Amino acid sequence: VFFLTDYGYADEFAGVVRAVISRHAPEAPVVDLTHGVEPFDVRAGALALRRAVPHVGPGVVLAVVDPGVGGGRRSVALSVRTGRDERVPHAFVGPDNGLLPWAVDALGGIEEAVALPAPDAGATTFDGRDVFAAATARLWDRVPLDDLGARVDPHTLVRLAAPRCQVTPDELEAEVQWVDRFGNVQLAARAEDARRAGLIADGHEHEHEHERDVEVAGSVTARARVVGSFGELSPGALGVVIDANDHLALVCDRASAATVLGVQSGDVLVLRPRLEGPV
Amino acid sequence: VFFLTDYGYADEFAGVVRAVISRHAPEAPVVDLTHGVEPFDVRAGALALRRAVPHVGPGVVLAVVDPGVGGGRRSVALSVRTGRDERVPHAFVGPDNGLLPWAVDALGGIEEAVALPAPDAGATTFDGRDVFAAATARLWDRVPLDDLGARVDPHTLVRLAAPRCQVTPDELEAEVQWVDRFGNVQLAARAEDARRAGLIADGHEHEHEHERDVEVAGSVTARARVVGSFGELSPGALGVVIDANDHLALVCDRASAATVLGVQSGDVLVLRPRLEGPV
Amino acid sequence: VFFLTDYGYADEFAGVVRAVISRHAPEAPVVDLTHGVEPFDVRAGALALRRAVPHVGPGVVLAVVDPGVGGGRRSVALSVRTGRDERVPHAFVGPDNGLLPWAVDALGGIEEAVALPAPDAGATTFDGRDVFAAATARLWDRVPLDDLGARVDPHTLVRLAAPRCQVTPDELEAEVQWVDRFGNVQLAARAEDARRAGLIADGHEHEHEHERDVEVAGSVTARARVVGSFGELSPGALGVVIDANDHLALVCDRASAATVLGVQSGDVLVLRPRLEGPV
Repeated sequence: VFFLTDYGYADEFAGVVRAVISRHAPEAPVVDLTHGVEPFDVRAGALALRRAVPHVGPGVVLAVVDPGVGGGRRSVALSVRTGRDERVPHAFVGPDNGLLPWAVDALGGIEEAVALPAPDAGATTFDGRDVFAAATARLWDRVPLDDLGARVDPHTLVRLAAPRCQVTPDELEAEVQWVDRFGNVQLAARAEDARRAGLIADGHEHEHEHERDVEVAGSVTARARVVGSFGELSPGALGVVIDANDHLALVCDRASAATVLGVQSGDVLVLRPRLEGPV
Repeated sequence: VFFLTDYGYADEFAGVVRAVISRHAPEAPVVDLTHGVEPFDVRAGALALRRAVPHVGPGVVLAVVDPGVGGGRRSVALSVRTGRDERVPHAFVGPDNGLLPWAVDALGGIEEAVALPAPDAGATTFDGRDVFAAATARLWDRVPLDDLGARVDPHTLVRLAAPRCQVTPDELEAEVQWVDRFGNVQLAARAEDARRAGLIADGHEHEHEHERDVEVAGSVTARARVVGSFGELSPGALGVVIDANDHLALVCDRASAATVLGVQSGDVLVLRPRLEGPV
Repeated sequence: VFFLTDYGYADEFAGVVRAVISRHAPEAPVVDLTHGVEPFDVRAGALALRRAVPHVGPGVVLAVVDPGVGGGRRSVALSVRTGRDERVPHAFVGPDNGLLPWAVDALGGIEEAVALPAPDAGATTFDGRDVFAAATARLWDRVPLDDLGARVDPHTLVRLAAPRCQVTPDELEAEVQWVDRFGNVQLAARAEDARRAGLIADGHEHEHEHERDVEVAGSVTARARVVGSFGELSPGALGVVIDANDHLALVCDRASAATVLGVQSGDVLVLRPRLEGPV
């Protein structure tokens, strides 16, 4: 079981859910992906989950970032259309608020979806503990999806708007989709987008001699060098890399690019190639 | 093994204790409840533990919030009076400072207690690592309690003062016993107390039409609506709910009720029904 | 597998590495030591690891604090010269930047070292996920070290400068090597150093009657009492103890000695015995 939430680390929320999962499925190893998603930030949770799932193994993913808890939103379990691939998670459990679909899509798409019944308590519920944990444990035990609830049309599942990413032959406009602990700024643009915008040369990542400058415009304007790795940057210099998730990212060597640029998640940056010569 | 402390996440304290437990009991899965209890806040730890234990399965609970480490306080192991119930923890390990008894009571009470011998080191000890971890592992392996130390009278165990909760037919005065990551304010009052104070109607939680207003007086005075769930609240509005631990709580929808009210754990709030009509 | 990093808890870094380890070695229990090392603080990570390893059991240690990721530094796996001791970790995996050797030395020294091949991706890599996790899983499965990479001379491994600790018969000058969550200040001096500097009497730790005063000079000058445990200190008073890692430490009872002294890791303090009589 792979487990991601915005429960944080101060309260016992994540611990209680872990305990309930292991009560229902004592053999299931629970691997915490993170519980440090910003409270209520479904978008950040969905992006973290999408980054993580290509690397996890078989099992069930439980994700809860749930500003709508106690409201009308559905609780869902989804199976993954993976064909015969037994090396990836086969099911996802969580709220129907857009948190899950991107990650399921990255694995092959949603096969089937069911709505999990709400507990018939009158009081406020802790859905992670009272709904999702048991469903997760049952799916881990290979209980069929249909035993957990009534089928719902996958097309009715809530989906988040895609992060902004617009490319022209000499400009790339992209949303900051993640600022990590180290201040690296991941953009909603992939290597392919950067190539189309003329920011990196074709096949750049195999030929480091094609180094270029990029102009980065947001709340401030800065110049960045396209580099193959952090180590090529001089202290304080801003770099553009294809990061370990195949996204375009702005980085500094041992310093925070987010601080240099004054940006946070959700901001939009414009990148343009600077071809007029050396700095 | 269910593990709760105030060790935090920056240092290796919790990790070392986990490692020592698994050295002594390699088969024991360690489920972290939380290590984010405020440093030295025995009361907060005891409350978190009491909230968690009804939901965990069989095993041993290790809890350490221990301002008196290295002082005269005893280290103890307690067995739980659960009759034949094999679905709950059978033993607790920790300091004798009030941290454990509330949780044990919630499961059926203390059956027997022993004092764990102190290590005969001259230096300061890290009791989690040097005393509690091995005792926890042995209890997980079903070593009898009496093999771990000398019996002590359970009535001599330190107990914390109960959180303040005073009820009259039209007023409820209760301590804030928890402010969670989301700013929800849990009071030391249960649904039954709220009913006796006229704050919620009998059977309210099954009939959402009995909505009422409540006056909340603390450092500021505010008005709150009794609701069945977060989703019924308009933005910025304060709600009174019976929370997922059957406690009365003050909440906002996707915002911090603690910030709105300016309260923290230990503060006392007075709630009175407002029956004179619509707002 | 024992796992220590500076990845923090907000991002999914540690979770993804845990997931990749369990994909390659499903039976391997992953014990998190901590992921709260200050970003890029190799020294703090190396010290935490050295404190932890004497207490962990058999297995593999994976540690990543890696400011040089993507630069020229090697990735390494080390085997431990433990003779026939099957109770301690047999291998370490991590960057070759000084993070690992102190801990390996504490267990008996480095037996053999190999350099792990870099992944042949063009983009920036997440070495924890793409290099270290699989190597760790294979070593846990008892794959021979030589199967993981080419031998390197252990004497060529990067080593950090030892923390400053200088002793004369009546003065001890030592680096603050750790300030923990509770504000305890661990110095780079051991009980033996304190004895040589006349700060504690021979055999002090078994005879608490030999109490003394110590003058502590750093950015401020303070007086501290040599005590056997926290509980002997009056509120606000500063104490000198031999801590649970056999290091000299400055402590307060239920308060932060670091705040009292205004110190942080890396600062240097001078301690002198005060023998001229009672305060």
